[in-house]
Amino acid sequence: MEYSLISGGVTAAEGFTASGVHCGIRKNKSKKDLALIYSDTLCNAAAVYTTNLVKSAPIRVCQKHLANGKAQAVIVNSGNANTCNADGDQKALRMCELVAEQMNIQAEDVLVGSTGVIGQPLPIEPIEEAAAALAGALSREGGTDAAEAILTTDTYKKEVAVSFQLDGKTVKLGGIAKGSGMIHPNMATMLGFITTDAAICSDMLQKAVSGVAQDSFNMVSVDGDTSTNDTLAVLASGKAGNREITEEDENYQVFYGALLLVCRELSKRLAADGEGATKLLICKVQGAKTVEDARGIAKSIICSSLVKAAMFGSDANWGRVLCAIGYSGCQVDIDKVQVEFQSQKGSVLVCENGAGVEFSEEKAKEILLEKEITIAVTLGDGEGVAEAYGCDLTYDYVKINGDYRT
Amino acid sequence: MEYSLISGGVTAAEGFTASGVHCGIRKNKSKKDLALIYSDTLCNAAAVYTTNLVKSAPIRVCQKHLANGKAQAVIVNSGNANTCNADGDQKALRMCELVAEQMNIQAEDVLVGSTGVIGQPLPIEPIEEAAAALAGALSREGGTDAAEAILTTDTYKKEVAVSFQLDGKTVKLGGIAKGSGMIHPNMATMLGFITTDAAICSDMLQKAVSGVAQDSFNMVSVDGDTSTNDTLAVLASGKAGNREITEEDENYQVFYGALLLVCRELSKRLAADGEGATKLLICKVQGAKTVEDARGIAKSIICSSLVKAAMFGSDANWGRVLCAIGYSGCQVDIDKVQVEFQSQKGSVLVCENGAGVEFSEEKAKEILLEKEITIAVTLGDGEGVAEAYGCDLTYDYVKINGDYRT
Repeated sequence: MEYSLISGGVTAAEGFTASGVHCGIRKNKSKKDLALIYSDTLCNAAAVYTTNLVKSAPIRVCQKHLANGKAQAVIVNSGNANTCNADGDQKALRMCELVAEQMNIQAEDVLVGSTGVIGQPLPIEPIEEAAAALAGALSREGGTDAAEAILTTDTYKKEVAVSFQLDGKTVKLGGIAKGSGMIHPNMATMLGFITTDAAICSDMLQKAVSGVAQDSFNMVSVDGDTSTNDTLAVLASGKAGNREITEEDENYQVFYGALLLVCRELSKRLAADGEGATKLLICKVQGAKTVEDARGIAKSIICSSLVKAAMFGSDANWGRVLCAIGYSGCQVDIDKVQVEFQSQKGSVLVCENGAGVEFSEEKAKEILLEKEITIAVTLGDGEGVAEAYGCDLTYDYVKINGDYRT
Repeated sequence: MEYSLISGGVTAAEGFTASGVHCGIRKNKSKKDLALIYSDTLCNAAAVYTTNLVKSAPIRVCQKHLANGKAQAVIVNSGNANTCNADGDQKALRMCELVAEQMNIQAEDVLVGSTGVIGQPLPIEPIEEAAAALAGALSREGGTDAAEAILTTDTYKKEVAVSFQLDGKTVKLGGIAKGSGMIHPNMATMLGFITTDAAICSDMLQKAVSGVAQDSFNMVSVDGDTSTNDTLAVLASGKAGNREITEEDENYQVFYGALLLVCRELSKRLAADGEGATKLLICKVQGAKTVEDARGIAKSIICSSLVKAAMFGSDANWGRVLCAIGYSGCQVDIDKVQVEFQSQKGSVLVCENGAGVEFSEEKAKEILLEKEITIAVTLGDGEGVAEAYGCDLTYDYVKINGDYRT
């Protein structure tokens, strides 16, 4: 199946508009802090959330509102996580009501997300005052404003969209996401919103998003901290006109492939824009005993502070990769491990049969000085394959997080 | 039972001498890189090792040599981990043989440890050439040279010793340890060596060291990376003259308490001297459902990069503590969580019933500017108590690890 990357993100699919404004939750007036995504018809919808026991108020409200598998709009603020606040649920619900009033829809059909500092009461007044302007600004072009408004310490917007054929119809699927810190999703990234005009029932949509999350957002780690607000929601308008997907047939596989492609691409951009990051790290594991082992090993390497710091220093310190494989908790025959560092400057084999091989330090340095590094691990234990996404550990990560709140 | 802190470390107990020299594994001639600990009689001995699947060659040799529960000497080099090398076992064994030749004992009664870079062949010649000088330098005072010779990026020596009464006899127990980076022990720290003149059989000694490791070294984390070389070994000479401990009686409890005290103190010093650290972080958890939950929660907090960076910035960002509790995988009623930051400047309550409480940011800053910070977490789930030890995440951690190898 062919998927074509197209421009746009959350408004690429038919029937969707979006907007993003500065309402005042953030003090910096040049930073947008409130986003709205809207479908002109009720959508089938599905979502996955953080596995953190501490869950944001918006997640609790989303879980209720998605009980019927339907949604028509998503409102999101940045600058405040609305988590660990006594009045959190009430305010998250109020955000949905504000959208319902403006768009003349049911509050139960609105999803809500928040991202920012944990444990500070969310100021609701700025959102109330901006609601009309937010609704008034809805447009196809507004997708990029929404992508901007959900960011926190991210340095750039993440928008991805694809088109593909389904059932003889052209289908579009696109999304936006934000990440940066507290990124070690265990269901989804901090916030990701996908829209599509594909026709697909809520159950199949939930199945797809749950599956895709495992191999995309759940394979990203910036700092090993699983956020309290992780949410990945997908809205499907059905406007593409394909026969509704209601079972795991060939069309479902095509749809699944598109969703995976968009989510993986967003995941890579999250990782590359991790707090303080100068490099995107991709860890590819093959030959693992099982897919679960491959995931566990890839994630263990991508999460290692020592591997991350070595990559920052462009140092081919492969012993740290072996160390992270060893403590991953996965079954590995260490004597069969092979490690290669790759970038667009080429590749260098550094470890074979679990022991070092001679290599050119000069060549290795040249490869590791690039912005996108692949750590390719080949095991001799089976057929399991996985990819994980991360970034280097830098002075700026410490700087950003040493005094984020004040 | 009363335990008195006494001066010295690994030679505080009767019958032990030690030495440390520069042999040339490290290029810097002012850095000692080879240590020897020696008992003038054969000791009962026990050890615990890393759970990392990638194990150093010295660990494999120690496991063989300790099969009979006896040891008389320990040789340790820094500057090279002797891990992931094809000829590693052979060289680790050679180190034991060198000691055996010098001291006229069996190579099987010698333990061996290495710490440093993984995956570079260990140069054995410098060790062969220094063997005679190392043996010749053995003395009571040499304990501090040994403590120095096992260090890598550590900035100071870790020596602790206590004396106590057992069976009417004065018993001494002391040790040395090294840590700094790749510290997330899952059996023991990178390297820890304890000696005692208590009489205790090998089985009881193994039981004690396995238990104590859980509540001391295994509760330390500097960077979440479990090393390939972690080893904690204890030698008991029996020279104190107490009746040999052969069962879990009252004397065993007294001995256990002394071992725990020394190992906890060494653990704190490892954490405080973590790579780049400016502060010691102690996380005390009480009221957990079980001891295992308390340990899991304390460790999750102490491991969080975001908590560590906030402490570096003296920022009372308690939301990150809640977040780390939430993803710990332990059972917690979040609505009952209480968090307090403590130091010698006082304490400040920041979270009660799982939500923020008003507090003086000024007072919090004053408390968090200290060198030793306690994060005190009180849960409402049971009686489980635990302590974990860590350090802040700083620019220097990144600097040290961005280019450690070259």
